[in-house]
Amino acid sequence: MFPVVVVQGGAGHIPKERSENSRAGVCSAARAGYAVLRRGGSSMDAVVEAVSQLENNPFFNAGCGSVLNIRGEVEMDAIVMDGKRLDSGAVSAVRNIANPIQLARLVMDKTSHTCLTAEGANRFARSMGVSEVPPESLITDYSRMRWKENLAPGANPVDSQMGKMGTVGAVAVDAEGNVACATSTGGMLNKMEGRVGDTPCIGSGGFADNQVGAVSTTGHGESIVKVTLARLILFHVEQGQSVEAASDLGLAYMKSRVGGLGGVVTVDPQGHWATRFSTRQMAWAAAQKDTLHYGLYTGEHLTQSLGDPL
Amino acid sequence: MFPVVVVQGGAGHIPKERSENSRAGVCSAARAGYAVLRRGGSSMDAVVEAVSQLENNPFFNAGCGSVLNIRGEVEMDAIVMDGKRLDSGAVSAVRNIANPIQLARLVMDKTSHTCLTAEGANRFARSMGVSEVPPESLITDYSRMRWKENLAPGANPVDSQMGKMGTVGAVAVDAEGNVACATSTGGMLNKMEGRVGDTPCIGSGGFADNQVGAVSTTGHGESIVKVTLARLILFHVEQGQSVEAASDLGLAYMKSRVGGLGGVVTVDPQGHWATRFSTRQMAWAAAQKDTLHYGLYTGEHLTQSLGDPL
Repeated sequence: MFPVVVVQGGAGHIPKERSENSRAGVCSAARAGYAVLRRGGSSMDAVVEAVSQLENNPFFNAGCGSVLNIRGEVEMDAIVMDGKRLDSGAVSAVRNIANPIQLARLVMDKTSHTCLTAEGANRFARSMGVSEVPPESLITDYSRMRWKENLAPGANPVDSQMGKMGTVGAVAVDAEGNVACATSTGGMLNKMEGRVGDTPCIGSGGFADNQVGAVSTTGHGESIVKVTLARLILFHVEQGQSVEAASDLGLAYMKSRVGGLGGVVTVDPQGHWATRFSTRQMAWAAAQKDTLHYGLYTGEHLTQSLGDPL
Repeated sequence: MFPVVVVQGGAGHIPKERSENSRAGVCSAARAGYAVLRRGGSSMDAVVEAVSQLENNPFFNAGCGSVLNIRGEVEMDAIVMDGKRLDSGAVSAVRNIANPIQLARLVMDKTSHTCLTAEGANRFARSMGVSEVPPESLITDYSRMRWKENLAPGANPVDSQMGKMGTVGAVAVDAEGNVACATSTGGMLNKMEGRVGDTPCIGSGGFADNQVGAVSTTGHGESIVKVTLARLILFHVEQGQSVEAASDLGLAYMKSRVGGLGGVVTVDPQGHWATRFSTRQMAWAAAQKDTLHYGLYTGEHLTQSLGDPL
């Protein structure tokens, strides 16, 4: 078994002028997560590190760079799950937090609960000494421009979102065979205040079980929850499917049953991994042994040595 | 196929002095839900009616009678799911609403989202003309007494909750073979502000799919989410298990894997139904053909004619 970290930066159509930044962002996040594994860190440490990097990167819809709700505000959802004991932590509709994924991990580690929402999540952050950031620090010119476009009469934020990018996430297996997942998002473009999507919903935004594997999902949240996509894929793995076949079965079922598109990164405890998507594109990267794998378009699979500079 | 509605009033230990009220409450809710089916209403109409009755009944932990959070406030979670198109709606950490289950249904029917949380959910309620009620109107002397007890040094709210009662919920099949589920709760005793449990999490608090069946769950929320209990039971049904065997398999797995106890009501589209629990008690009732079935203790199965007065 070889430790691995696999990262996704959102499924959808990535505008050409943003594609290089998306590729660079997921590669950098996968390298950062893999560096944690190489230092002997756990799969949970690795996925939180990788997703934190994507939250800090303004080219992705999570943390800084999140899409705005109908009121022009950032409200974020995030989840982590540890396959060892099926522990999980999540936050929903949280504001003014630079790294919601780290707050989700604190919910798992420091409370008897699995999810905190809205002001209660912020209150918990303060009690843990997590500093809050100014709301504007999470808003980019690009997200403000898209928000304004979608306030126009006749705008269709759902279509607009499907054409752009979704959630970010990561899965990993460490040297001890523990699996973990992490998923973080700013949600749907111009969503209602307080809208919670699939991301913080266990089994939809992600799932991790050392006996089966781990999945992080991205795509149309309201479709992902209808089929509990992450858990569905792991049921297929339990029944003997490879991570690749199980991911394709889950995505095909979501498309045929509810018409939804998305993408996933999946691992099993043996270190097999897959990145699959039914959208036009998904920025992804995986680091294992000495090689960084990455891609953006269907069928694209590039590699470089992990020894090469970033 | 015979239409049916099955109701649960929470799994746990029900104090003796409250057992008659619990029995009467679930029987009355099942009758109300079944009256909707008899009038030609849908399974969704039936489960929302049954759960609304339990929310209005101060003997159950949902709506009026909800447990209080650590700050002495009521924050409620609810979900509905329609098996026809896998549509769902949920609210989490909502305040000052008499019937969160009806608000969850409005989220499903009137928005493009599946879950609204906290103040965003209240804002949506106002926009729909749902009247807000004074916070005190949802608080009973009993819930205030239990809150105070569990503020004491050395109190263990989790154990205290396991000894009492959880969520309420219902599943139904209508004359057209459509299945639906509804689950509503005040959550965990003395929970943190903003704590969201299993109830509004699709696949955990409930799931409904016309091709398989419907489940509503109750019990220790942080265990239920770890095994996505509702979806897990329906995977067993998909693989040929009866609703009863599938429910037992799901509950046994939750107990052995994560040490959690709970209860479920389950139906399949053919009108087969089961009420199963791993706790000491669960108040339940089911109405089908001319008979009301009900019970509270393991193995207890009483019946009366639906023609009899309430």
